[in-house]
Amino acid sequence: MSNARVSGPVRIVGAGLLGTSIGLVLGRHGIDVSLVDSSPTAVALASQYGAGRPAAEGDTPKLIVVAVPPDVVADVVERELRDFPDAVVTDVTSVKGSILLDLQSRGVDLTRYVGSHPMAGRERGGAVSARADIFTGRSWVVCPRPDADSVAVNRVSDLAIDCGANLVEMSTADHDTAVALVSHVPQIVSSAIASSLIGAPDSSVELAGGGLRDMTRIASSDPGLWIQILSANAADVTVVLEDVRDRIDAVVTALRSGAPTAALADLLASGNTGVSRIPGKHGRSARFAHILVVIDDRPGQLAQLLADIGDLGVNMEDLRLEHSPGSAIGFAEVSVLPTAEESLVRELEARGWRIAGESQ
Amino acid sequence: MSNARVSGPVRIVGAGLLGTSIGLVLGRHGIDVSLVDSSPTAVALASQYGAGRPAAEGDTPKLIVVAVPPDVVADVVERELRDFPDAVVTDVTSVKGSILLDLQSRGVDLTRYVGSHPMAGRERGGAVSARADIFTGRSWVVCPRPDADSVAVNRVSDLAIDCGANLVEMSTADHDTAVALVSHVPQIVSSAIASSLIGAPDSSVELAGGGLRDMTRIASSDPGLWIQILSANAADVTVVLEDVRDRIDAVVTALRSGAPTAALADLLASGNTGVSRIPGKHGRSARFAHILVVIDDRPGQLAQLLADIGDLGVNMEDLRLEHSPGSAIGFAEVSVLPTAEESLVRELEARGWRIAGESQ
Repeated sequence: MSNARVSGPVRIVGAGLLGTSIGLVLGRHGIDVSLVDSSPTAVALASQYGAGRPAAEGDTPKLIVVAVPPDVVADVVERELRDFPDAVVTDVTSVKGSILLDLQSRGVDLTRYVGSHPMAGRERGGAVSARADIFTGRSWVVCPRPDADSVAVNRVSDLAIDCGANLVEMSTADHDTAVALVSHVPQIVSSAIASSLIGAPDSSVELAGGGLRDMTRIASSDPGLWIQILSANAADVTVVLEDVRDRIDAVVTALRSGAPTAALADLLASGNTGVSRIPGKHGRSARFAHILVVIDDRPGQLAQLLADIGDLGVNMEDLRLEHSPGSAIGFAEVSVLPTAEESLVRELEARGWRIAGESQ
Repeated sequence: MSNARVSGPVRIVGAGLLGTSIGLVLGRHGIDVSLVDSSPTAVALASQYGAGRPAAEGDTPKLIVVAVPPDVVADVVERELRDFPDAVVTDVTSVKGSILLDLQSRGVDLTRYVGSHPMAGRERGGAVSARADIFTGRSWVVCPRPDADSVAVNRVSDLAIDCGANLVEMSTADHDTAVALVSHVPQIVSSAIASSLIGAPDSSVELAGGGLRDMTRIASSDPGLWIQILSANAADVTVVLEDVRDRIDAVVTALRSGAPTAALADLLASGNTGVSRIPGKHGRSARFAHILVVIDDRPGQLAQLLADIGDLGVNMEDLRLEHSPGSAIGFAEVSVLPTAEESLVRELEARGWRIAGESQ
């Protein structure tokens, strides 16, 4: 029935967004999944969704997934290792080093424990937000320690692969440094920017455009969860946050001095360089050519454009639609490899499409 | 021929993104638009696009729009007021106070000058990026001074309305305070976050998710332009930037102290409050439901999806593609009116599409 790499039974502790979503994936593979949660309602809900059955006496899980809030992960991992002496245990917490340190300080034998972190989430948590597809195409970091059992490492890696994620192996330390940079510090800074809006007059806030909206989107995240994550990764977060603060402070000093040009040039140029390091798209990728095609705002137009691009054998790397509400026309920004740009523009124009712009 | 409020002739100085876009709008209303730019190529290009004709001896503009870089705006406004003694002159610069001060310090009679600021732009500048609809639904701030001629104020307000913008009247001081908050400080902070990526290993940067991408999108903006804008609004920017820096610094101090909970709770909760003040939704329009559809990364898939949506008679309001490089699948985020959401999800699933998420 299943082509899954993981073989059950699997026990999931914590029927929130991640635990329930993992249960949904494994359930589709026909694997026996048992669920526990401090809230019986959460277990009942997750079961109804098809994420597994309530756990029972005599369960003999081969793999246990701990998906509970950061501040109780070490307790739960220790308990599960003790209660199920034949099972491999992983957790899915956003921070890995402090949990490992906690477990080690308790003298727990960690041969069967392998920490992991699926880089997936939604702005809303809980079983109600769970989906089997939230891991698809996302990174899932697995942190094998040198002393970990290779069977355990493979079993956890198989879980990530079964969930459709891109498996990334990193050391615990490298993981925590990386997420401080790409996730934790951006969270703090987003909250700081959003906080600065509190005392402002409505007339100011109403001028907010796309830039501010993008900068503050993650500021609507759950404080309770984030206090735990940030506290647990304090050392790595502090290093990056001080760097960002110092860069801002250099601009403050320069603005106050009345001669800000050099400091602003330095920051803005560094920002250009930094953003170009992010793979894939950030708005638009510098690796691709972008062609702006005018489309009428009526059903079928965009489908026709994409069909034409497909006919021409061109692989579209990215697509963005832009149109103003109420406007009769819109724009499709088609991203292709630079080598494909010239002929695509020529062929599209030959088919009657209007090209409003090109850029790389 | 025209139902425009503005009557020409209109003279546009500076055939960049904003100047050319305004020319396109007025041209569609049949208004005589003349163009000047320090670059004859820019004038030729803008003319070809339909943004107006090259300026000529004997032009008698009733309205002059100065759309040149911030550091030469005052020079150009002074010159235009002198050269065309019957014309109303406006500018479209992102900063208003320093320009006004500069003009006043020269002893220029400003009866016929009314500063304005259309809150529209694109990551790419220049006439090639110009579009008639970039102002549609955006705010266009007009800053009438108590001593300004009411005919002049009306003429500039009419321009904003003709361009499809939402007319917002603010004092020069209020405008500069507002844009420091909603635009200028976010630009600096985005650049600071992006800068922090420069020295990081590839493996860290590759974990970047949507949060970091959103936070750094505007960090790819043009440094040359932003140095001028930020320098010209130094006082207001400094106040807000110090506030943001202090909020970040409080977290750094708390993290270093080993007892960060209260400081983190304060910041994260304030962030929740602040972001809730932004009208509409952060990042995506609250007026639409957003459906995340899983698509295989091969030619024809997206075209098929759009054809299916078209078949179902659903009007797609917006579309964004998301996919990780090297990943076999991607996501199309389809935005539709909330009333269309439920049936669209059902019909798409019936046609075999996988829905990875929904949100409003």
